[in-house]
Amino acid sequence: MAIKHVISARQFDVKLLEHIFLLTERIKKGRYNKNALAGKIMATLFYEPSTRTRLSFESAMLRLGGKFISTENAAEFSSAAKGETLQDTVRVVNSYADVIVLRHFEPGASEFAAKYSKVPIINAGDGEGEHPTQAILDLYTIFSKFAHKNIQVTMIGDLTYGRTVHSLSQLLSLYPGIKLVFCSPKALAIPSKLKSELSSRKIDFEETEDFGMSIKSADVIYQTRIQKERFKSQKEYQKYKGTYIIDNNVLKNIKKSAVIMHPLPRVNEIAEEVDSNRRAIYFEQVKNGIYVRMALLLYLFDKA
Amino acid sequence: MAIKHVISARQFDVKLLEHIFLLTERIKKGRYNKNALAGKIMATLFYEPSTRTRLSFESAMLRLGGKFISTENAAEFSSAAKGETLQDTVRVVNSYADVIVLRHFEPGASEFAAKYSKVPIINAGDGEGEHPTQAILDLYTIFSKFAHKNIQVTMIGDLTYGRTVHSLSQLLSLYPGIKLVFCSPKALAIPSKLKSELSSRKIDFEETEDFGMSIKSADVIYQTRIQKERFKSQKEYQKYKGTYIIDNNVLKNIKKSAVIMHPLPRVNEIAEEVDSNRRAIYFEQVKNGIYVRMALLLYLFDKA
Amino acid sequence: MAIKHVISARQFDVKLLEHIFLLTERIKKGRYNKNALAGKIMATLFYEPSTRTRLSFESAMLRLGGKFISTENAAEFSSAAKGETLQDTVRVVNSYADVIVLRHFEPGASEFAAKYSKVPIINAGDGEGEHPTQAILDLYTIFSKFAHKNIQVTMIGDLTYGRTVHSLSQLLSLYPGIKLVFCSPKALAIPSKLKSELSSRKIDFEETEDFGMSIKSADVIYQTRIQKERFKSQKEYQKYKGTYIIDNNVLKNIKKSAVIMHPLPRVNEIAEEVDSNRRAIYFEQVKNGIYVRMALLLYLFDKA
Repeated sequence: MAIKHVISARQFDVKLLEHIFLLTERIKKGRYNKNALAGKIMATLFYEPSTRTRLSFESAMLRLGGKFISTENAAEFSSAAKGETLQDTVRVVNSYADVIVLRHFEPGASEFAAKYSKVPIINAGDGEGEHPTQAILDLYTIFSKFAHKNIQVTMIGDLTYGRTVHSLSQLLSLYPGIKLVFCSPKALAIPSKLKSELSSRKIDFEETEDFGMSIKSADVIYQTRIQKERFKSQKEYQKYKGTYIIDNNVLKNIKKSAVIMHPLPRVNEIAEEVDSNRRAIYFEQVKNGIYVRMALLLYLFDKA
Repeated sequence: MAIKHVISARQFDVKLLEHIFLLTERIKKGRYNKNALAGKIMATLFYEPSTRTRLSFESAMLRLGGKFISTENAAEFSSAAKGETLQDTVRVVNSYADVIVLRHFEPGASEFAAKYSKVPIINAGDGEGEHPTQAILDLYTIFSKFAHKNIQVTMIGDLTYGRTVHSLSQLLSLYPGIKLVFCSPKALAIPSKLKSELSSRKIDFEETEDFGMSIKSADVIYQTRIQKERFKSQKEYQKYKGTYIIDNNVLKNIKKSAVIMHPLPRVNEIAEEVDSNRRAIYFEQVKNGIYVRMALLLYLFDKA
Repeated sequence: MAIKHVISARQFDVKLLEHIFLLTERIKKGRYNKNALAGKIMATLFYEPSTRTRLSFESAMLRLGGKFISTENAAEFSSAAKGETLQDTVRVVNSYADVIVLRHFEPGASEFAAKYSKVPIINAGDGEGEHPTQAILDLYTIFSKFAHKNIQVTMIGDLTYGRTVHSLSQLLSLYPGIKLVFCSPKALAIPSKLKSELSSRKIDFEETEDFGMSIKSADVIYQTRIQKERFKSQKEYQKYKGTYIIDNNVLKNIKKSAVIMHPLPRVNEIAEEVDSNRRAIYFEQVKNGIYVRMALLLYLFDKA
């Protein structure tokens, strides 16, 4: 399985993931060619702002000796405002760069762009669609802590709209023996499409509204942000906002060996007092994000 | 003829153009020093957004081993908002960079800036003024397809406000034996100043509203965008919008050897179905844009 | 005295300043390793725009062989808009970069950020707080013209809110024998906190509204911008705006050996006719800004 673009978590099978993770491991240890991508240019083409993701990709490129050109707000500033189609923009940027990192507000934008691109497209988030490199770095982080089997991963928060949760569930479902627990308000449960998919793969999963139960036996607690605007009433929002919070008290009720993850940014769903706990690994995720993106770049440029 | 700044197409004579084009040709073939501009810094100073042009210059600089610093929206973000004059900004950026690529909304801004700059200024578009590097890359693209003589170049669209058309006409008029045909609604005809200039140089040119006739015997069909806001009435706009469109049907009525060019971005004035036709060379223009800008940079830094 | 972050002018004593200035001197003469910071990445994290300062730091980094990642408008574009705290952002960017240049609208932001950062933070302005690198480059510029003793430095303009004036006064007060004269409308006089500080250090200083007297015997005339919005009435603004202006006429009444400085941007408080006078050194300040920032970077990375 060789892929030319990174569009969706669905493109990755266990073999390819293992290849990427071995590479990531080597990079983490500093065992890589710091000039592997010398002479290569990345274009970060962001149709909606995401400074964090953009800087992560750009930092990854620089660490491999590559360079980048960048636009922070393609939608407002570029030819798009003059009515240019995405395919034209992609074809133009093909002359400027050797790889395009694309962030777009519309689901499917990256897949569409890839059809018109001779250089690799990396999906850095397409609306409510996917954000595959986030899912891959999350999976890498989990496997850097646990063996691939017999672990329980509990995902909490907005499971309807959280594309991170969908892509990560999808990747986890490739590994038999992993149990998934989804904890959310009923109104923000995982989509039925994802449920059917997990069922068809005979994945052991559970849905619950009970935060306490969901984390008790979890090995991985994957917390996400709940956005106010997803709720019908302010009252309902306050109820869940106040319930699904990880603080030092909660830490007493989870496994000693558990880890707490978050795709960031967080607001208050993990209290800051938790940061210094060794089980809190969300800033480790950020660091792994650089390594995984470096690995994916090396792979796409056939330097892996 | 040696130039220190690139402000206007008028600075270029045949000899200098030939020098630049020979250099461009060598770059296109990869025969250039990839570290020619090592240690040099370009500042892209954009007072109005033009992601496409900015990225093109930045990519050109990187390919020569140079680096860049950049501002995407100088007018809103910089000291300009505090009332700083352009000349002060230019003098300040002289301490930061070895060449300044300036995009400004006011005609004449680059010429003015050049008076205060010890480092080369490259005009990347000054309002309805000029965009000389676009004209030079267009000319290079034409000459990469045809000999310098006995060709007909038809320019279509908004010929009143289209600075690209003016600068390109100006450059083409340096070469005897080229026939120019201007096809536009009467309300958007070429300015009388340009007409007098072409007449005084004894250039063979024609004006018409008849799209079909204008392209029939053309070797180069240079299509441009017509902006809605240029028309007095919506009705008039619709009329021309619907008429001056190049699609597969139109292709049947043009020369087999003709080429179709466009400065981009396009909206619908060239149908997407035309893209795959070998006569459509607008994306080749984009690629040539990088090479020509690299050549100009080498020239300005005396590395040519 | 070793410092890890550059947060405030108060961190610098005479010995450290001398060290930085010797380094700056060497850099100015081109005697430095152009690859000293190869492999290092700077993040310029600007929560309010300041193109000038940002480009100065980025240019300094590039000249030392380093690279940078950048955000021009962190407040609007980044996770901050989603409610992320500054400490989280800093911890995240720690994974992306080896040094963070922070511009923030809130006084104290850099000091706060430094508490959470493993990589050096450089304060590039925090609201009405400090802008230490500006003060250091100003001091360097003064000492490049005069011995450390027996000079009169006159500062003019908005002395209440001008953070540059506060930090520079603070640094100058480390050197006995320097006389400070503060010339401003009463409503915009230096804060009493600064006055007590200068008194406690036995610094010779004077306050006046009399522009003519203040500059007559000055060796250094440090002019600053007065912002319209600081005044209660339009009339009062016009009065001072019209009075505190340096033009060719004023030059007749100052010392032949005096120098005229300004942190820039200026509006009309120094007439453009003054620029060509050899006593006008404000553009020299800009150039020194690059050298001083390079020196500080080398120092922070222990390459000094």
